[in-house]
Amino acid sequence: MINQELLNKYADLAIKSGCNIQKGQLLIINAPVDCAFFARVCAQKAYEAGAGRVVVQYNDENLSHLDYLHVATDELKKVSQWQIDRKQEQIDNKCCMLHIDSKIPSILQDIEPSKIQEVMMSLQTAMKKFRYYTMADHGQWCIVAIPNLLWAKKVFPELNDEQAVEKLWDAILKSVMVNEESDAVNNWDFHNQQISKRATILNDHAFKAIKFKNDLGTDLCVGLVENHIWAGGDSMTVGGVKFNPNMPTEEIFTMPHKYRVNGKVVSTKPLNYNGVLVEDFEIDFVDGKAVSYSAKNNQEALANLINLDEGSCYLGEVALISHDSPISLSKILFYNTLFDENASCHLALGSAYPTNVVGGTDMNEEQMEAVGCNSSMTHVDFMFGSKCMNIVGVNNDDSEVVLFEKGNFVI
Amino acid sequence: MINQELLNKYADLAIKSGCNIQKGQLLIINAPVDCAFFARVCAQKAYEAGAGRVVVQYNDENLSHLDYLHVATDELKKVSQWQIDRKQEQIDNKCCMLHIDSKIPSILQDIEPSKIQEVMMSLQTAMKKFRYYTMADHGQWCIVAIPNLLWAKKVFPELNDEQAVEKLWDAILKSVMVNEESDAVNNWDFHNQQISKRATILNDHAFKAIKFKNDLGTDLCVGLVENHIWAGGDSMTVGGVKFNPNMPTEEIFTMPHKYRVNGKVVSTKPLNYNGVLVEDFEIDFVDGKAVSYSAKNNQEALANLINLDEGSCYLGEVALISHDSPISLSKILFYNTLFDENASCHLALGSAYPTNVVGGTDMNEEQMEAVGCNSSMTHVDFMFGSKCMNIVGVNNDDSEVVLFEKGNFVI
Repeated sequence: MINQELLNKYADLAIKSGCNIQKGQLLIINAPVDCAFFARVCAQKAYEAGAGRVVVQYNDENLSHLDYLHVATDELKKVSQWQIDRKQEQIDNKCCMLHIDSKIPSILQDIEPSKIQEVMMSLQTAMKKFRYYTMADHGQWCIVAIPNLLWAKKVFPELNDEQAVEKLWDAILKSVMVNEESDAVNNWDFHNQQISKRATILNDHAFKAIKFKNDLGTDLCVGLVENHIWAGGDSMTVGGVKFNPNMPTEEIFTMPHKYRVNGKVVSTKPLNYNGVLVEDFEIDFVDGKAVSYSAKNNQEALANLINLDEGSCYLGEVALISHDSPISLSKILFYNTLFDENASCHLALGSAYPTNVVGGTDMNEEQMEAVGCNSSMTHVDFMFGSKCMNIVGVNNDDSEVVLFEKGNFVI
Repeated sequence: MINQELLNKYADLAIKSGCNIQKGQLLIINAPVDCAFFARVCAQKAYEAGAGRVVVQYNDENLSHLDYLHVATDELKKVSQWQIDRKQEQIDNKCCMLHIDSKIPSILQDIEPSKIQEVMMSLQTAMKKFRYYTMADHGQWCIVAIPNLLWAKKVFPELNDEQAVEKLWDAILKSVMVNEESDAVNNWDFHNQQISKRATILNDHAFKAIKFKNDLGTDLCVGLVENHIWAGGDSMTVGGVKFNPNMPTEEIFTMPHKYRVNGKVVSTKPLNYNGVLVEDFEIDFVDGKAVSYSAKNNQEALANLINLDEGSCYLGEVALISHDSPISLSKILFYNTLFDENASCHLALGSAYPTNVVGGTDMNEEQMEAVGCNSSMTHVDFMFGSKCMNIVGVNNDDSEVVLFEKGNFVI
C-alpha cells in the first residue's frame, strides 16, 4: 500500500493544481467506492483549502456490471428527472468536479456492446447540456487516477498482486510528479510553463493542416479550423480560474476541421471503450468522416463508437506528444486513456473543445458547425503515435514546417 | 476476513428471509462504502431471486464527520427537492429497502450535539412522509450488520485488529444463525414460529399495562393502548409479504399508551445516538412524558433526543427479551442497538409502529393520537433489562400475571 504522506501529497495536488478549488466553492467528487480512502483525503484537503461544501458521489462498476447482466435495456436507459435536477443544481452552484478514475479493464467484456451503447447513449442524451459545462470550461474539472488490483494485474501481469499494485502506484505518482523530495504543486507550475511555451510556438505558426506519416500505415492530413488554439497543461475557466483538467498531461492539442480530415490512421495502443478493449484498429477518413474501419479485437465496440451519433464519426481533437515524453519512456502500457494518451500522438472521435478556437465558448451550435467544430455526445481519444512518426505543419501557402522527426518534436 | 461461503449465505439470508424480495421488485440497498464487498453480494443474490432492479446508495460516515467539522449548520440542513423526488420515486415503485449497518462508534464525538441535532431534525422533517412507508410496513425493509475495525475494537478492545474483526464477525453470524452446518433460511423460519407463539400468548392476555421492577432502580408502569398487538420475528407488509425487519431479532414488542407511562427507568447498556455514546442514564416518566433525566456520559445528547420534537419525550415501543436470550448469553456488549436491544428489555423514545395496534396502518394522525399512539420524527431504542428484572402484566380488573422472574420469561 502507498504511504500516507504520498497519498496526502497526491490529494493536495489534485485539489490545488488540479481543481484549484475556490473559497466557498462546491466540489463534487466522483469516486469509485474502492477509492473511498482517497476521496476522503481529497475532501479533507478541499475543506482545508476553503471549499464551501464537498459532495462525494460514489460509483461502483461491479454493480453496473450486475445491472447490465440482469436488467433489460429499456429499464437501464431510464433517466429520472431528479437525476437531471441534481446535476442542474450542481452547475447552478458553479461547482468544481473532481473525477477519481480507477476503471477496471474489460469489466463489461461479457455484455453485448450494443446494449452498453444504447444505455450510454440514453444517459448522455439526457445529460447533454451538462457536458458543455466541462467541455467549455465553465467550471474547473480534474481527472486523477488510483490503482486497483485488476487494473494493476492487466498492466503488470508478470507480478504478484501486491507488487503489481505497488508498481502501478509508483508509475502513477511518477507521471504526476508526486514524490517525497519535491513540492508537487511547484513541479506542475514549471511543467505547465514548458507546455505553454510549445503551444505558443504552434499558435504563432497558425497552420491550416497537420500531416502525419509513419511506417505502420498512418498517412493522414488533419485540417485545422481557422483561428484554432493549441492548448495544453493548465486550462482556464470562463471566469478566469486556472486548473489542470488531466493529471498527468503531456499533450498539446487543438481543433481539427470537422470536414477536412483525409487519409488513414493506424492505432498503436488499445482503446478502452465502455469497459471493452479495442485493439489493433485502423480508420480511413474522407472529408472528415470515418468511412471505413477494422479492428483485430472488439471491432463491434469500435463500430458502436463511430456510429453513436452524427458527430461520432468525425474528429474533435488532434494532440501532439513526443515519443520521448516521460510516460512514453516508461514503456508502460496503462490500458487507460488518461495515461496512454500522454505517451502518444492521438485523435479523438466526437465533440471538440470550444476552448480550442477563438471565441468558441461564446458560439452557439450553428456557429460552431460553421467554423468546422464537431459536436457529439461523446469524446473518445485513441492513440496512433509511434517512434517512427513524422509530422509536418502546413502553412496557408502550402509550404511545410517539420514538427516531428522519428516520433519527437524538433521545434 | 470472513470466508466467502458464509458471506454468500449471509447475503442470501438478508435477501430471502430479511427482504423476501418479490419478482420484479425494486431493491434499494443503503450501504456504507466500506461494506461494498457485501452490498455487491446482496445485489447479486437479489437479482438471482428475481429483483427487477437493485440500486445501491453508498454512504460514508467519515465524510459526514468532515462535513460536520467544516460546513455551517444552515448549509448542512438544506434538503434539495431532487432528494425528496428520488425517495418519492422509490416508494411509488413500492421498493424494498435493505440497510447495511456498520456504524462507527463515537465518530461524531467531537461535534457539538446541538449541531447534529439540528441537522438530523431538518433531514427527518423533510423526509417525514417517507418514514411512514417503513414504520407502517408498506414495503419490506431489513437491517443487517457488517463489522468494521473501529467497531470491532470498541467491542473487543483486548484483541488485535484482525482478531477483533474476526470475533465480531463470529458474534454477528452466530446471532443471525448463519453457519456452515445448517440452512439459515430454515433456522429463521423456526425462530419466527417460536417468537410468534409467545406473542400469541401475550396477545391473548390483552393486558392494560406492564410493570417493570429491578434492584438497579427501575420501577416503571407502562400502560398499553387498547387493542395493542404484541409482535416479533417476521412482519408482514400491508400487501401481505412476510419479511424480517431486524436481523438478529429476539424481541416481542408492542405499543405503550402515550400518556400512561409512570415511574423511573435506569439504563443497563449505552445508547449510540447520532454517533455519540450516552452511558449510565435514567429517565423519570409522569403521565407518559419524560420529565427528568440524567446521564453519566454525554447527557447533552440524551437531552437533544428527548427534546427533539413534541413526541420524542414519550414512548413508542416496549419490548420484552429474556435475559437468557442467545445474544444476552454471549455477554458481548455490541455498542449497537440492532444487537444490544436483543439482549435486553427495552423502550423506545419517539414514534410508535402503527402495526402494533389493530387497524393502525389505516389510521390518520388524529386517530393515532386518539388511541394513544405516539408520533415523532425519531424512534430510538434504549436498554434497561437485567438479570434481576421482574415483570408483571396487569389485567383490566387490576389482577396481575407474572411474566418475568429474575430477568427471564416464566410464561
